[in-house]
Amino acid sequence: MVLLRSYVSGGWHTATDEGVPLHDAATGEEVARVSSTGVDFAGALDHGRRVGGPALRELTFHQRAALLKALASYLREHREELYAVSARTGATLGDSKFDVDGGIGVLFTYASKGKRELPNDTVYIDGAVEPMSKGGTFVAQHIAVPLQGVAIQINAFNFPVWGPLEKFAPAFLAGVPSLVKPASQTAYLTAKLVELIIESGILPEGSLQFIAGSVGDLLDHVTAQDLVSFTGSASTAQKLRAHPAIVRNSVRFNAEADSLNCSILAPDARPSTPEFDLFVKQLVSEMTVKAGQKCTAIRRAFVPAEMLDDVAEAASARLAKVVVGNPSAEGVRMGALASLEQREEVRRSLKALLDAGSVVYGDPEHVDVVGADEATGAFLSPVLLKADPQRSEPHEVEAFGPVSTLMPYTSIEQVIDFAARGGGSLAGSIVTGDPEFARRVVLGVAPFHGRLLVLDADDAKESTGHGSPMPQLVHGGPGRAGGGEEMGGIRGVLHHLQRTAVQGSPKVLSAVTGRWVEGAPRVEGEHPFRKSLAELRVGDSVVAGPRQVTRADIDHFAEFTGDTFYAHTDEAAAAANPLFGGIVAHGYLVVSFAAGLFVSPEPGPVLANYGLENLRFLTPVKEGDSLTVTLTAKQITPRVDQEYGEVRWDADVVNQNGESAAKYDVLTLVAKEQS
Amino acid sequence: MVLLRSYVSGGWHTATDEGVPLHDAATGEEVARVSSTGVDFAGALDHGRRVGGPALRELTFHQRAALLKALASYLREHREELYAVSARTGATLGDSKFDVDGGIGVLFTYASKGKRELPNDTVYIDGAVEPMSKGGTFVAQHIAVPLQGVAIQINAFNFPVWGPLEKFAPAFLAGVPSLVKPASQTAYLTAKLVELIIESGILPEGSLQFIAGSVGDLLDHVTAQDLVSFTGSASTAQKLRAHPAIVRNSVRFNAEADSLNCSILAPDARPSTPEFDLFVKQLVSEMTVKAGQKCTAIRRAFVPAEMLDDVAEAASARLAKVVVGNPSAEGVRMGALASLEQREEVRRSLKALLDAGSVVYGDPEHVDVVGADEATGAFLSPVLLKADPQRSEPHEVEAFGPVSTLMPYTSIEQVIDFAARGGGSLAGSIVTGDPEFARRVVLGVAPFHGRLLVLDADDAKESTGHGSPMPQLVHGGPGRAGGGEEMGGIRGVLHHLQRTAVQGSPKVLSAVTGRWVEGAPRVEGEHPFRKSLAELRVGDSVVAGPRQVTRADIDHFAEFTGDTFYAHTDEAAAAANPLFGGIVAHGYLVVSFAAGLFVSPEPGPVLANYGLENLRFLTPVKEGDSLTVTLTAKQITPRVDQEYGEVRWDADVVNQNGESAAKYDVLTLVAKEQS
Repeated sequence: MVLLRSYVSGGWHTATDEGVPLHDAATGEEVARVSSTGVDFAGALDHGRRVGGPALRELTFHQRAALLKALASYLREHREELYAVSARTGATLGDSKFDVDGGIGVLFTYASKGKRELPNDTVYIDGAVEPMSKGGTFVAQHIAVPLQGVAIQINAFNFPVWGPLEKFAPAFLAGVPSLVKPASQTAYLTAKLVELIIESGILPEGSLQFIAGSVGDLLDHVTAQDLVSFTGSASTAQKLRAHPAIVRNSVRFNAEADSLNCSILAPDARPSTPEFDLFVKQLVSEMTVKAGQKCTAIRRAFVPAEMLDDVAEAASARLAKVVVGNPSAEGVRMGALASLEQREEVRRSLKALLDAGSVVYGDPEHVDVVGADEATGAFLSPVLLKADPQRSEPHEVEAFGPVSTLMPYTSIEQVIDFAARGGGSLAGSIVTGDPEFARRVVLGVAPFHGRLLVLDADDAKESTGHGSPMPQLVHGGPGRAGGGEEMGGIRGVLHHLQRTAVQGSPKVLSAVTGRWVEGAPRVEGEHPFRKSLAELRVGDSVVAGPRQVTRADIDHFAEFTGDTFYAHTDEAAAAANPLFGGIVAHGYLVVSFAAGLFVSPEPGPVLANYGLENLRFLTPVKEGDSLTVTLTAKQITPRVDQEYGEVRWDADVVNQNGESAAKYDVLTLVAKEQS
Repeated sequence: MVLLRSYVSGGWHTATDEGVPLHDAATGEEVARVSSTGVDFAGALDHGRRVGGPALRELTFHQRAALLKALASYLREHREELYAVSARTGATLGDSKFDVDGGIGVLFTYASKGKRELPNDTVYIDGAVEPMSKGGTFVAQHIAVPLQGVAIQINAFNFPVWGPLEKFAPAFLAGVPSLVKPASQTAYLTAKLVELIIESGILPEGSLQFIAGSVGDLLDHVTAQDLVSFTGSASTAQKLRAHPAIVRNSVRFNAEADSLNCSILAPDARPSTPEFDLFVKQLVSEMTVKAGQKCTAIRRAFVPAEMLDDVAEAASARLAKVVVGNPSAEGVRMGALASLEQREEVRRSLKALLDAGSVVYGDPEHVDVVGADEATGAFLSPVLLKADPQRSEPHEVEAFGPVSTLMPYTSIEQVIDFAARGGGSLAGSIVTGDPEFARRVVLGVAPFHGRLLVLDADDAKESTGHGSPMPQLVHGGPGRAGGGEEMGGIRGVLHHLQRTAVQGSPKVLSAVTGRWVEGAPRVEGEHPFRKSLAELRVGDSVVAGPRQVTRADIDHFAEFTGDTFYAHTDEAAAAANPLFGGIVAHGYLVVSFAAGLFVSPEPGPVLANYGLENLRFLTPVKEGDSLTVTLTAKQITPRVDQEYGEVRWDADVVNQNGESAAKYDVLTLVAKEQS
C-alpha cells in the first residue's frame, strides 16, 4: 500500500505512522494512505523562507516566467500520467482534462503575462510617479517587492491539479515560495503532480513544498511575511480566518469558499431562441461536469415565471441522457462524487432544500450505474429541484454535487434581489440576447459577484462557460464566497508583494526603481542611439534643436498629409477656437520634427521605434516657435529570449520659452550588443 | 455641561444617560460628556444602506468629487472654529493645523484625483479588456462598482479631524456612506467637525453618520457589503478582526495600528553634513509634534555605532529648547498628552524600555511646565533613550508619546535586519546623501513598510517629512502595523468597490461598461467629428482611405522632418534590419496620413487633439502600401464644470491586406453642444 510522502525542507518525508486510507471513488478500493505525522512544520516554513525565497528573489519576473513556461511544457508531456491517477477520484476523462489541462493552462498564461506585463526586474513599479512638491525636488513612487515568507495554500478536494497550480503560479511569479496542502480525499493526485514537478528539476529548491495529510501546528508559526490561502467550506474558512497567529500577525488571508452561484434566464430568451437552449445546456453541464463538485457550479437557476415549466422540461430531457457510472466505462458522462462521505453530505443538503421545494428530475436515493456498483462507489443521480425563491434555503444551503434549483421571477428588480440573497457568490451568468437586460442585471448584481458571464448567440461558441475560472480574471467573491481574490492576471501576483510608497528626490527614486524619474540627473555624451543595451544607462540623454516651425511648414504639412483641420489652415476660424486663438502647428508635425531632431540615422543598436505612450500636447506651437527636444533613457528591459530588448525614452519637446509643447514616451527595440 | 450628540438615521440623537466626562488635556477641566446610549445601531446601518448609499450611487465619480471640493472649501472657511476646540486636546496651534489643515487637504486631494483619474461615470473600468478567444467574440473586462453597505470607521484619539476625513474622503468618492466613530477622549472635536459638515448641507443625507460614545452592538449587524476600518491599538485591532460577524461575512477589515517606526542615519551622513542635521532635526520634531502621539512617529533611531554619541548630543541640545506647557501659552512648543490615563500608559511603556537601555535626555517623572499645572495636565518631558538593538523591547514596546530610542548598527545588512525586527511598520526614513545606500536599504526594508522616506539635502526643503501620511500614498503597513492600506490615491477608493470580471461578447461588454470594445458594432453615418457630446454615441465611426504611400512620400517625409533614420532612407541597411528587411515608412508618417484621412476640417464640436495613447506600430508600411483608417468613438467623458469634455477614439490603420499597421487611442476635446 502506498503511503503518500510530503516534500518538505528539501526532501521527501515518510510519515512515522500508517496513515489514513483513501479510496477509489468509483470502486471503493484503497488507493493510498495519507499522513503528515512527523513533519517538522516550523522547519518547513523556515526552509521556504531561508532557501526558497532568496533563490526566487534572485530571479527577475521574466526569469521566473520562463521557468513557469518550462514547467508547463514538462507537465503537458506528462499529462497522461495525471489523467490515469485522476480517474480514481471519480473523474471522467473530460473531467480530468478540465482539471489537468486547466491547471497547465494557468501556468502558460502566467508565463505569458509575466513576460508581457511585468518588468524584467525584481522590483515592480506600481502606478505613476506622484508629484509631491511644487519645485519637483520631492516626489514619490509606489513600488512592490516580494514578501519574505511562504505562501501556504490549503486546497479543496475537487481540483487536485488545477487548484494547487492556480495558487502556485502567481506566488512563484511574485517570487514567493509555496507550501501546498491538498485536501486528503484526493491528495494522491496532487502528490503525483508534485512528484512530477520535483523530478523535473526545473524549480529552485524550496520554491515548492508539499504536505500530504493534516497541517498539524503549521499555522501557529505563520508571521506577517507569510500568506495563507484557502479553498473549501465556509466553516473551515471562518476557523482559519480567526486563527490566533493569523489575526495577531495581520497575515494576508485569502479564502475561496463554496457559494450559491446563480444563472439568470432573460425574458427575451423564449423557448426556441438560441439563448433558451444555451441556458438549459449550460445548466445541465454545470450539474454534471465533475458531478457538480465545482465551487462555481450553478446552484440557483432563475427563470421568468412563465417559462419555468419549459425550462424544467427541457432540462429534464437533457438530464435523462446523462449516463452515470465508472469513469472508465464506455459512454459514461458523469462519474462518482469524490467519496461516500461526500455523497452523504450532499444527501443531507438535499433534504434541507426539499423543505422549500420539490424534485423536478432525479432520485436522491438511487441512480442506475454503468460499470460499477452503486453500493461501493459514490454515485448520485443528477437532481434538479424547483423551489420558492422567497424561502431562505435555496439561497443558503449548498448541495456540493450534481444538484441545482429552478426558481421563478417576475421582474428585473426582483431577480437582482434574488441573486443578492446568495450573500456573495463566485460566479453568475446571465443568458440573454438583450444587451440592455444584460447591462442592468450585471450592474445590479456585480456588488455580490466575483465574476459574471453574459451568454448569448454571439459568444456561445467561444465562451469558456459559467463554471470556468480563468487565470486572466479574478476568481473569488464577496461574503459567503470567502471575500478573497485569486488570479486576475497580474493582480494575483501583486497579492504576494508588499506595496510601499517611497518618497525622495528624483535622483534617489531613479536609483531605487531603476527607472529614470523626471528631475533626476541626465547624462549627455555619446548619442544614446549609438549605445547597445549593455552600454546604455538610465538617464543617458540627447538634447537636440532648436528648429523653428514656420508658417510654410504648417501649410506644407497640412497639404502633404491632408490634415487640413481648420486650426492649422484657417486664420479666422483658428482665432475663434477657445484653446488656440490662432493657427497652430499639427501635433503630428511637432513629434515628427522632434524625431528628426533626436534621431541618429546611421545603422546601430537601435532597431525600431515600435510605439509611443502617454503623448500629451501641452502648449500650442505657433509659427515662429523654436522647438528643442530632450530624449532620455527611462527604462531598459532586455528580453530573456532575444538578442534585443525594449528601451523606453522620455521625450520632452519645449519651445523657445522652455514651455513643454509635447511630452511622451518613445518605445524602441535596441540590440543587447553592438553588432 | 455639553453632552455630545450622535448623528444617526437622519437626525441628532442625545443619549438617554448622563455620559462619561472628557477632560481638557492641559487644564483638566471637563470639556464635554459622551455617551451613545439609546442609539439604534442596526437602524443607523440600515439608514446608510437604504438612504445614503442609493443617493451616492446616483452620482458619478466626478459629481462626488465636486461635492468633496465644496466641503473642503466650506471647512477651510470654518477652520478657526476647529482650531479653538483642538486646543483642548492638548494640541499647540501647530499641532492643530497639522490635524485640521491636513484633513481638509485630504478632501481637496481626493476631489482633484477623482476628477482627473476617475471617469465621469458610476462604473469604474479596472484594467484592460482581456481577449479570451481567438475569434474575438468572447472577451472580458473587470469593472468595479460600489459596495452597497456602510463604511464603518473607528478612529484613534490623536487626529480627531484628519483621521475621520482621511477615511471618509475615499469612501464618499467611491459612493459608499460612512459611519464615523471617534475615540471618546477627543470626540468633542470630531463632533464639532461633523456638526459643521451637517450644517453645510453639502452632502446627501445618509452619506455621513456619527456616533459619540461606544459602538454598542453595531458590529453584530455588519454584512458582506459593509466595511470596517480601524485605527488604534494592535490589541483592539486583533479583537475586531476576529469579531464573529466580521469573520462570518468576510467583511473587508482594514486596520492601521501603532508601529515601531524607524529612522536610519547613513554612514555618509557624518556630523556637519546637511543630512546629519536633517536626521537630528526630524527626530526631535517627530518626538515633539503632537507630543509624539502619532502612529507614524519615529520610535527607533538607528545610527552608525561610531556616531551614536554625536547624535545623542545634538538631539539633546535641540530637545533642551522645547518648551512644554499649555498650548495657549506664549512660546510653548509641545503641549500635553491627550489625557492623564494616556500619560500613565506611556510611563508604563517607558519602564519596559528602560530594562533594555538608559535615558539620554529627559525625565519620565517630571517636566517644567509653562502656563499650566503639571499635576492636573497630562504633561510629559520628551524622553530620548538609547538601547541595545539585540534586545527585543525596543522593537516591540511602543511608548505612544514624546519618546524615541537611539540604537547603534555596524553594517548595512545589520540595520536592514534591525528595521525588520519591528515586525511591520507604517513608515520609515533613511537619511543619506548616498543614493546607493538608499537603494539597498529601501529594497531591503520595503517588505516591512507601508511608506519609506529618503531624506537628503536635495529634497529636505520640499519634503513633507517622516510623519506625514499623504493622501496620494498608501498609509498602513504589514504585520504589527495592522496589515491595512488606506488612501494611496485612487487605491483607497477601489477598496470600497467590488471588482467583478465580466465576460461576454464585445457588444454586451460595450453596453455594460459604456465604452466601445473592439469587435462591438460600429455605426457609420454623419462624420462623428460633426457631432457634439450630446449627439455622439460610443461606437460612432468613420472609415477613411485608402491612401497609397509612395517611395516619394517616404523620401520627402525624411527630408522634410529630418528623420533620416536608415530604415527610411538606406536600401541596403534597411534590408539588413532584422525587423524590416527593406525601406519602411516612418511611423509618424503613417499616423500623420491617418489624421489626414479621418479629419473633418471645418470648425465644429471637435476643439482639439490633446494627445495619443497606446500607439503601437504593428506591421511595417512599405512603398506601394495603401492605408485605410477606422476611427471609432470609444469613451465619452463630459466635464462637470466645462462646456466640453473628452472623447477617446479608437484608431486602427490597416494596409491593403487588412493587417493593422498602427493602433492607438486619439484623445480629443469636444464641445457639449453645437455652437
